[in-house]
Amino acid sequence: MDEPESNAQPYARVLEMMAADRASAALGIELLEVGDGMARCRMTVRPDMTNGYDIAHGGLVFTLADTAFACACNSWGELTVAAGAEVSFVAAARRGDVLDATAALRTRYGRHGIYDVTVRRGDEVVAEFRGRSHRPRS
Amino acid sequence: MDEPESNAQPYARVLEMMAADRASAALGIELLEVGDGMARCRMTVRPDMTNGYDIAHGGLVFTLADTAFACACNSWGELTVAAGAEVSFVAAARRGDVLDATAALRTRYGRHGIYDVTVRRGDEVVAEFRGRSHRPRS
Amino acid sequence: MDEPESNAQPYARVLEMMAADRASAALGIELLEVGDGMARCRMTVRPDMTNGYDIAHGGLVFTLADTAFACACNSWGELTVAAGAEVSFVAAARRGDVLDATAALRTRYGRHGIYDVTVRRGDEVVAEFRGRSHRPRS
Amino acid sequence: MDEPESNAQPYARVLEMMAADRASAALGIELLEVGDGMARCRMTVRPDMTNGYDIAHGGLVFTLADTAFACACNSWGELTVAAGAEVSFVAAARRGDVLDATAALRTRYGRHGIYDVTVRRGDEVVAEFRGRSHRPRS
Repeated sequence: MDEPESNAQPYARVLEMMAADRASAALGIELLEVGDGMARCRMTVRPDMTNGYDIAHGGLVFTLADTAFACACNSWGELTVAAGAEVSFVAAARRGDVLDATAALRTRYGRHGIYDVTVRRGDEVVAEFRGRSHRPRS
Repeated sequence: MDEPESNAQPYARVLEMMAADRASAALGIELLEVGDGMARCRMTVRPDMTNGYDIAHGGLVFTLADTAFACACNSWGELTVAAGAEVSFVAAARRGDVLDATAALRTRYGRHGIYDVTVRRGDEVVAEFRGRSHRPRS
Repeated sequence: MDEPESNAQPYARVLEMMAADRASAALGIELLEVGDGMARCRMTVRPDMTNGYDIAHGGLVFTLADTAFACACNSWGELTVAAGAEVSFVAAARRGDVLDATAALRTRYGRHGIYDVTVRRGDEVVAEFRGRSHRPRS
Repeated sequence: MDEPESNAQPYARVLEMMAADRASAALGIELLEVGDGMARCRMTVRPDMTNGYDIAHGGLVFTLADTAFACACNSWGELTVAAGAEVSFVAAARRGDVLDATAALRTRYGRHGIYDVTVRRGDEVVAEFRGRSHRPRS
């Protein structure tokens, strides 16, 4: 699975990864778009995604961003994992909100990458996420 | 819900918050312990919590840590929210793994707090999380 | 010092702040450009800025980024301070290198802001910094 | 310099590194203590370390923490560098303040490590720093 993904379908790795991603599926996370170093995912805040203060659980907002990040950093065709991330919660999301997470490469160096993900509800920012990726040696 | 929680049950806010936390419940996250500035939660990695590489989705590991953090920072009895967090993924967790997240206060200042959460599988560290909390003005 | 900085020189707060910034001056940090939510600063790595591995001390690369961040987040005319920051060291800088730090607003909300700063040597990225700002109540 | 540092002076790498660290010397940073995975450094805030708001420049507080982190992560005897860090500024430091930075290992995994550094003035916390270290392949 680590060989060059030559003349296969573009972004085959991302599509296969998402097809096998049971956690994202269980949360209703959809991949809307993928490109070189970018991806866009969507999730609707269901009632069972709210926390004890009746707003979207920050962990699930993070999860949406993390999935978009995973798609973006795997878009180059090589197995890439999340090493870590930083998130700021900008606004509370509520049940029924449709959240859109757009991930974009900031920089790559050696086996590492940094990707910025903005989670929005319409035009409003809900969270800012910065992920650190790592390509393990095979 | 914001009045002093005087001679009520200790940690009443945390218990009520967890009782209403549908997202944590849906993920099977249990509160094992709560104290002043600390909390411990547990989650078992179910098959529907794995990502496209068949390991626990980082977002759900984060969610476990975030719930423990929420319990710890609300343990003082005042409404407190997550402003942001930083996480490093140390080891992959697999389906069936029982994860334990221990949150502990590092420091408080003004309306802010910093809490460290370590997620472990047995003795092994799975993730290190540092959360930043904020007490909104009522 | 917190009143509207009306018909004064644009970015007067930033210019005054930099004029009084003895630390930045001691490190030879120059402000090249300032705009709404953005700033660009420059620093040359002197021999007394290298660490025990003979590369630029990461703390001083951070300091350059932090100064650019301070200029950007104070560009709106109100007293604003750094609440925290995250940095990734992308490439080592060496003595004699001229480093350029470009700070740009990512998002503002309430009294908070997030700014991204990229430190470069020519076209090459040296560090990626994300700062969190705060406007204290007067 | 990368061979096993067998029966040499304990912490020889750290002592040599600090002896060659011109940036830390220029800032008056002293190493007070080093142990396995820990270090303690001190710095006095000089007038030329203050920023435009007449408090210690956050970048230099970070630099103190970063030096303590470098000593702690190099204490194991192998060349180790900073990959990145996260800092929260807890309280302003002022000229004349004597700052103490204590770095302690949180966890090590593969070629990576996480270290927490608390910067204090007496008993009061000034900053909380979390560094990510990396041992490059030789």
